[in-house]
Amino acid sequence: MKLAMIGVGKMGYNLALNMMDNGHQVVAHDANSEQVDKIAADGAIGAYTLEEVVQQLEKPRVLMMLVPHGEITENVIATLKPLLDEGDIIIDGGNSNYKESVRLGESLKEKGIHFMDCGTSGGVSGAREGICTMIGGDPEAFKIIEPVIKSVSVENGYFYTGELGSGHFLKMIHNGIEYGMMQAMAEGFDILEKSDYDYDLEGVAKVWNNGSVIRSWLMELVESAFSKDPKLEEIRGVMNSSGEGKWTVETALDLQVPAPVITMSLLMRYRSQEDDTFTGKVVAALRNEFGGHAVVKK
Amino acid sequence: MKLAMIGVGKMGYNLALNMMDNGHQVVAHDANSEQVDKIAADGAIGAYTLEEVVQQLEKPRVLMMLVPHGEITENVIATLKPLLDEGDIIIDGGNSNYKESVRLGESLKEKGIHFMDCGTSGGVSGAREGICTMIGGDPEAFKIIEPVIKSVSVENGYFYTGELGSGHFLKMIHNGIEYGMMQAMAEGFDILEKSDYDYDLEGVAKVWNNGSVIRSWLMELVESAFSKDPKLEEIRGVMNSSGEGKWTVETALDLQVPAPVITMSLLMRYRSQEDDTFTGKVVAALRNEFGGHAVVKK
Repeated sequence: MKLAMIGVGKMGYNLALNMMDNGHQVVAHDANSEQVDKIAADGAIGAYTLEEVVQQLEKPRVLMMLVPHGEITENVIATLKPLLDEGDIIIDGGNSNYKESVRLGESLKEKGIHFMDCGTSGGVSGAREGICTMIGGDPEAFKIIEPVIKSVSVENGYFYTGELGSGHFLKMIHNGIEYGMMQAMAEGFDILEKSDYDYDLEGVAKVWNNGSVIRSWLMELVESAFSKDPKLEEIRGVMNSSGEGKWTVETALDLQVPAPVITMSLLMRYRSQEDDTFTGKVVAALRNEFGGHAVVKK
Repeated sequence: MKLAMIGVGKMGYNLALNMMDNGHQVVAHDANSEQVDKIAADGAIGAYTLEEVVQQLEKPRVLMMLVPHGEITENVIATLKPLLDEGDIIIDGGNSNYKESVRLGESLKEKGIHFMDCGTSGGVSGAREGICTMIGGDPEAFKIIEPVIKSVSVENGYFYTGELGSGHFLKMIHNGIEYGMMQAMAEGFDILEKSDYDYDLEGVAKVWNNGSVIRSWLMELVESAFSKDPKLEEIRGVMNSSGEGKWTVETALDLQVPAPVITMSLLMRYRSQEDDTFTGKVVAALRNEFGGHAVVKK
């Protein structure tokens, strides 16, 4: 199949290579023209504008996007909409908020353009070797893109999730679970590190990856991280986040589902971004007020 | 190697079979004599008392225990202590509290008996096919038992953790992490189940097990559970626990390590064991007191 990849950063670049390995012709575009040059050297058809992308494709056109969610996704779609025709298919492979995907999809439906919300998981290596995809949107449009989705996914690694929005919703929940799993593992290693026993943390992760109940790809990544830096002395414990955990918590609140572990994982990320806290100052000041307890001066 | 297995319930039975498959001679004992008959029929040397167990072994005797932690473990060791000699080795393969293991190990040291605290993970199937073991205790004694431990473990699935107590400490943390991972996954599926989208939850778990970041043995068990009962309608959401999660939280408190996710996972288990809560009654009563808000009558 001939299709476009819009956004060839880390994920999109590897996914485009993966597509080409599987015999697909890729029309590649990126806001950074150097990335277009680079992937063109790797065998893609370079396109320096979205107009060029559209000209290169045959109807029904299939365009996959892997660009940052929010404003950039909105702008790409706003530019594409007048250029595309009825029956064309846009696949948003990024981490867009499912509510935005529903809104964008509905607006494209006015022109008969299909919008497929496709959550992708597996990291940069997965994009290259075989990814996990969860896709919502029109079932007939899904049939058209299924061969390419199947070919870039690992075996049994793609799932048609139903109506518009359900793919990005599922990817959002996937990431919420990921936050909780990572925080649980990290707390365990924190206790080990502060305990009186002197554990080889790489050895711990390794034994847990071989036969234990908590064996998992994330634990393999823990093992890899400790193999490079046994006490993680080279990095600070600042945990950033890019939206999906927050949306999961917002969704849990909307649905009134008690999800304390996912919520706490998100809040611990926020805490990690502060060197000092106003909460801490207030509590310290109060202990001083009522009990004369010493405060730590700045 | 000829060694004893004391306690041939679900885990011990399978582990004994695993040992025999690997060419070891197993002297099997259980408080339930029917289990002894059964495993004798499967090829073990049945022993109906601990005295018989000890008589069957050659020095240095090696005895593995897989019995419930606490009183039963204490009683078995109290009975064995006068029967054993210097250089003999007891391996506690159960989920004992590491503090108890340190105390028992120190008391056995008086007689020159080695106590190895051996955490095992992998569930009942792991015990049969290949388990994950983390073992603390005397390093020389470990060398003696290493061949049998290695042969029942999966490849790279055993780890000598160092001094007495460090094996059960590590297993405790493993279980604490397990609580957090399970709660995180469960909260995610709870949100999916209550969402407006109609997901096939088995299909969700399956796609997540193929290429996603959260692929794991626990997610495979989720897939298996949904394959048998798509909405888990046959069971109630009561989450029991058997000690290790609580000890992990106690240890985190002792070491002053903030471990909110593991802690919250434990607390949600306690919450699940109550049909109604006194907390709920107090809050409902207060809302009624200050705002005249309706209460739900019993």
